[in-house]
Amino acid sequence: MPIYNAPIRDMKFVMQEMLNVGQLTEYDRFSEADTDTLDAILEQSGKFASEVLTPLNVIGDHEGCTRNADGSVSTPAGFKQAYQQVVENGMMGLAHDPKYGGLGMPGTWHIAAGEMQSASNMAFAMYPGLTNGATKAIEIGGSDAQKATYLPKMISGQWTGTMNLTEPHCGTDLGLLKTKAVPNADGSYKITGQKIFISAGEHDMSENIIHLVLARIQGAPEGVKGISLFIVPKFKLDADENPAERNAVSCGALEEKMGIHGNSTCVMNYDEAEGYLIGEENKGLRVMFVMMNRARLDVGMQGFAQSEVAYQNAVSYAKDRLQGRSLTGPKNETGPADPLIVHPDVRRMLMETKAYNEGARALVYWAAMLEDMEMVHPDEAVREKCDDLLGLLTPVIKGYLTDKAMATTIDCQQIFGGHGFIEEWGMSQFVRDTRIALIYEGANGVQALDLVGRKLARKGGRALMSLNAEIDEFLAEHKDNENVAEFMSGLEDAKKQLTEGTMWLMQNGMTNPDNAGAGSTDYMHMMGLTAFAYMWAKMAVVAQAAIDGGSNDEFYTNKLITGRYFVLRMLPQMGAHLAKMKTGAEPLMALDAAAF
Amino acid sequence: MPIYNAPIRDMKFVMQEMLNVGQLTEYDRFSEADTDTLDAILEQSGKFASEVLTPLNVIGDHEGCTRNADGSVSTPAGFKQAYQQVVENGMMGLAHDPKYGGLGMPGTWHIAAGEMQSASNMAFAMYPGLTNGATKAIEIGGSDAQKATYLPKMISGQWTGTMNLTEPHCGTDLGLLKTKAVPNADGSYKITGQKIFISAGEHDMSENIIHLVLARIQGAPEGVKGISLFIVPKFKLDADENPAERNAVSCGALEEKMGIHGNSTCVMNYDEAEGYLIGEENKGLRVMFVMMNRARLDVGMQGFAQSEVAYQNAVSYAKDRLQGRSLTGPKNETGPADPLIVHPDVRRMLMETKAYNEGARALVYWAAMLEDMEMVHPDEAVREKCDDLLGLLTPVIKGYLTDKAMATTIDCQQIFGGHGFIEEWGMSQFVRDTRIALIYEGANGVQALDLVGRKLARKGGRALMSLNAEIDEFLAEHKDNENVAEFMSGLEDAKKQLTEGTMWLMQNGMTNPDNAGAGSTDYMHMMGLTAFAYMWAKMAVVAQAAIDGGSNDEFYTNKLITGRYFVLRMLPQMGAHLAKMKTGAEPLMALDAAAF
Repeated sequence: MPIYNAPIRDMKFVMQEMLNVGQLTEYDRFSEADTDTLDAILEQSGKFASEVLTPLNVIGDHEGCTRNADGSVSTPAGFKQAYQQVVENGMMGLAHDPKYGGLGMPGTWHIAAGEMQSASNMAFAMYPGLTNGATKAIEIGGSDAQKATYLPKMISGQWTGTMNLTEPHCGTDLGLLKTKAVPNADGSYKITGQKIFISAGEHDMSENIIHLVLARIQGAPEGVKGISLFIVPKFKLDADENPAERNAVSCGALEEKMGIHGNSTCVMNYDEAEGYLIGEENKGLRVMFVMMNRARLDVGMQGFAQSEVAYQNAVSYAKDRLQGRSLTGPKNETGPADPLIVHPDVRRMLMETKAYNEGARALVYWAAMLEDMEMVHPDEAVREKCDDLLGLLTPVIKGYLTDKAMATTIDCQQIFGGHGFIEEWGMSQFVRDTRIALIYEGANGVQALDLVGRKLARKGGRALMSLNAEIDEFLAEHKDNENVAEFMSGLEDAKKQLTEGTMWLMQNGMTNPDNAGAGSTDYMHMMGLTAFAYMWAKMAVVAQAAIDGGSNDEFYTNKLITGRYFVLRMLPQMGAHLAKMKTGAEPLMALDAAAF
Repeated sequence: MPIYNAPIRDMKFVMQEMLNVGQLTEYDRFSEADTDTLDAILEQSGKFASEVLTPLNVIGDHEGCTRNADGSVSTPAGFKQAYQQVVENGMMGLAHDPKYGGLGMPGTWHIAAGEMQSASNMAFAMYPGLTNGATKAIEIGGSDAQKATYLPKMISGQWTGTMNLTEPHCGTDLGLLKTKAVPNADGSYKITGQKIFISAGEHDMSENIIHLVLARIQGAPEGVKGISLFIVPKFKLDADENPAERNAVSCGALEEKMGIHGNSTCVMNYDEAEGYLIGEENKGLRVMFVMMNRARLDVGMQGFAQSEVAYQNAVSYAKDRLQGRSLTGPKNETGPADPLIVHPDVRRMLMETKAYNEGARALVYWAAMLEDMEMVHPDEAVREKCDDLLGLLTPVIKGYLTDKAMATTIDCQQIFGGHGFIEEWGMSQFVRDTRIALIYEGANGVQALDLVGRKLARKGGRALMSLNAEIDEFLAEHKDNENVAEFMSGLEDAKKQLTEGTMWLMQNGMTNPDNAGAGSTDYMHMMGLTAFAYMWAKMAVVAQAAIDGGSNDEFYTNKLITGRYFVLRMLPQMGAHLAKMKTGAEPLMALDAAAF
């Protein structure tokens, strides 16, 4: 049975020592976000993850969800009760507006709590996760009346939410979507169409499900300019705003999937279902994309969360399993063999995973902090900078983090040998569950294109200039800190190579846009590596300062060792990406499509 | 429903145009291995793979195997009949000695036929594959009487075979194995113990199953020096050598696995089962390892075979699925969107897979040809060279090819977006089935260690010198061929970097063996890339010669385009591997084991 122990020490290191999340208490919205409360929330969330969600993860994988004859869907045994606990603990509203019943805590806290849920049970965590996304969309785009009606019950967790974008013939290319909305006399709409891959589309956990649905209003323009967003509740509300009559929306089928079996992935059929427009006609994508960007950070988080739990189990196995002898002589002389962890190649896989996990956590928490700052900071210039950086980092976090998580979970599985391939040890599930993170909320190739085609150029390239300036300032500040010199030179080199890649894209993407497309994934990885180099340099400075200040806590020396692995053994990948992208589109496009 | 079309044109290109497999007919053993026969075998095998094995692949994945109350195991519907067809077509004995009923064809042909079976249905292909391995072990180590008894019926396919190595507490470290063998008065042994992960350990396809079992004879030395190999038939033979009384060996359980559900992975219990020693006491590993090395080539083949079928399905989807528009303007103006294949990042994944598949095929077929040559060539120096090269390439083929296959099958799945994650399209199965290839027959980390710790140093490093000499000779011969200059300089660079890596290993692996272990996987990938560079350069020369000779067949220009992708976009990985390995063991070993 797999284990999971929330890495609270590391979470707090990032939040408190690196990001100084405590500074948020200066602002009204977060005035109650003090350390004691944070400790209590991390403690409680960690315990819940280890004791409740971890055992349910295996059950969820084995049982999956069941669609019953009447179209209702039963979640795996124990999921409903666990969800009830989340609701009772008030965790659904952790970071939401107190005005609607939320606790008003920082998004940085929310992402940490989310990491624990996603690590211990990704399929489960998606139910609250999607509710959070739908809540966000209503917060962003809904009318005051809609907010008053839906937010309190979604923030309490009494009702859950979904996002309905994909249709059988379109996923990425939303311009092709066909679901239609016909106005009723009372201002509502009749929604008709089929949506697929709808996570948490139907289940038995909550008394109502609030579907957010993209559809095309009769007569709307073609393509992406004619898409509107609707609220379609599973049960229409009566005069007291309680769920009453069943709406004409139902789950037509559940998908059989590679992983996340505990989450109900539904084909949803809308048959003149009653829906309510959010925001303006034909402007649905605007709201949806603000929400999607937030969701993309969550998916990046899912990546390293799965990698974290895979790592913890691989470490435990590598310490217990006796197999072979160290190349430098026995380390467990009285035993029949040495533990796996003596073997350098096993350590390579563990160190790669550890360095990735900790770098990823720092990056995602930083992004969450940028979001918090954007919400509360009084200076518009700061808020804009936060927004710029977030926009730039979002596709990188989604794409690079999940690509790497796929590799690290596979490495962690590999450490188990044949025992990793059988389902008994749970490693297969981590790999299978992680797999979806590279696909949903925009496939990673789409993230790469968003980065090079949109985010780089936006506002005259301001976001990247802002990141570069921040890195330069940081480098200038710490250039004389000899104890962390390796981290600084690693960061400087990475930034140089990234800049070379950026210049190449600017020069060659104009003349032939396919050059940008052809280099997009390599470039995304380069920016991911550079962002990691920055995070690791920041963490190294903090750790070194603690040591210089007299701390004997081995946490800090271990942090430096792990970061050094990143600089020495992960950063060299930059050069390969740069060399590949600079070959341009021609090697990819030369083959006639028919010749594939 | 996934498709598979045997890439016969490419197979024949490698076999006939690149390797000149026809030269084998000069030797008695292969005198009947003419082109017409080859054509007939490829044709028939391809048809069988597409029409019979491909549809069974999905069924096998869904149904899996069932252990019945009496301990018997039922294979998925249709597997038994398909196996019967393999037997009736004489394919089980394709490359085996005519003396025992084989057809006596080259191993090169066998690997091509095996590729088709493994691509279309990996779980199925393992039943004949393991039988082939067990047959090989008896050929290598068995007495004449054992050969006479077992080989004809295994070569006909009437009986199948298994390999029993792993026990619950030991996989890689066979020195720990506990299964014991107690001599009987008649020269046979009583075998007692438990073996796990035994592929095809019990099933309903054949009238007998010949288990080859590693065990320790009472009083044998500890560790690897006390391991013997035994034949343990499921049914003991009567005086007429027909299966009669049931032996005390049974399947205790089937494993639930990530993939290859159609293959029965058994816990095998031996309870004083009657067994017969193969070869000498305590020398069992010698036979087993000759056989294992052969099996490792097959596993490398499985890797690119799965990648090939994943590629074919991804290409088909990328041509059909309309989503988004080309960055350089619509390519399908009358349609609602362009096909996925217009997008450079989609092409990147397809080209990477195509360049890998074709390079891998060339490398594995070359290895098979080396084996054929080793068997028949009259000149001992040639035979030794073949053996050297095979020994060197085997861990690279097993490790590098399957590592890459994991990445390419995941990329092919990625092209399907959400449709890749659901089981309906079959892409998940390719990924799940491929996963085992990185683990069994020696995990890839063990391959890397075999390469740097054993194969490089063997006989004073003769094997690598031999490979280098061959490459140098080839480069000298073609240095003036300007049309393939990119291939030559790519190969030359790769060889230089590999040599730098080898020198580093020699200098640093001596002072600290952990340096060799820490760099082993990077080095294995470097040798894989160099071997691919050699294969691609050879293929480029052949293709260019055909073009220069006036051929209008686009196959040749496409071959050059694909190879060029390899040189420009895959070879740059060499530099990253070299940089990483040269950081040595310290970054991996610095962290105290307790700190993981």
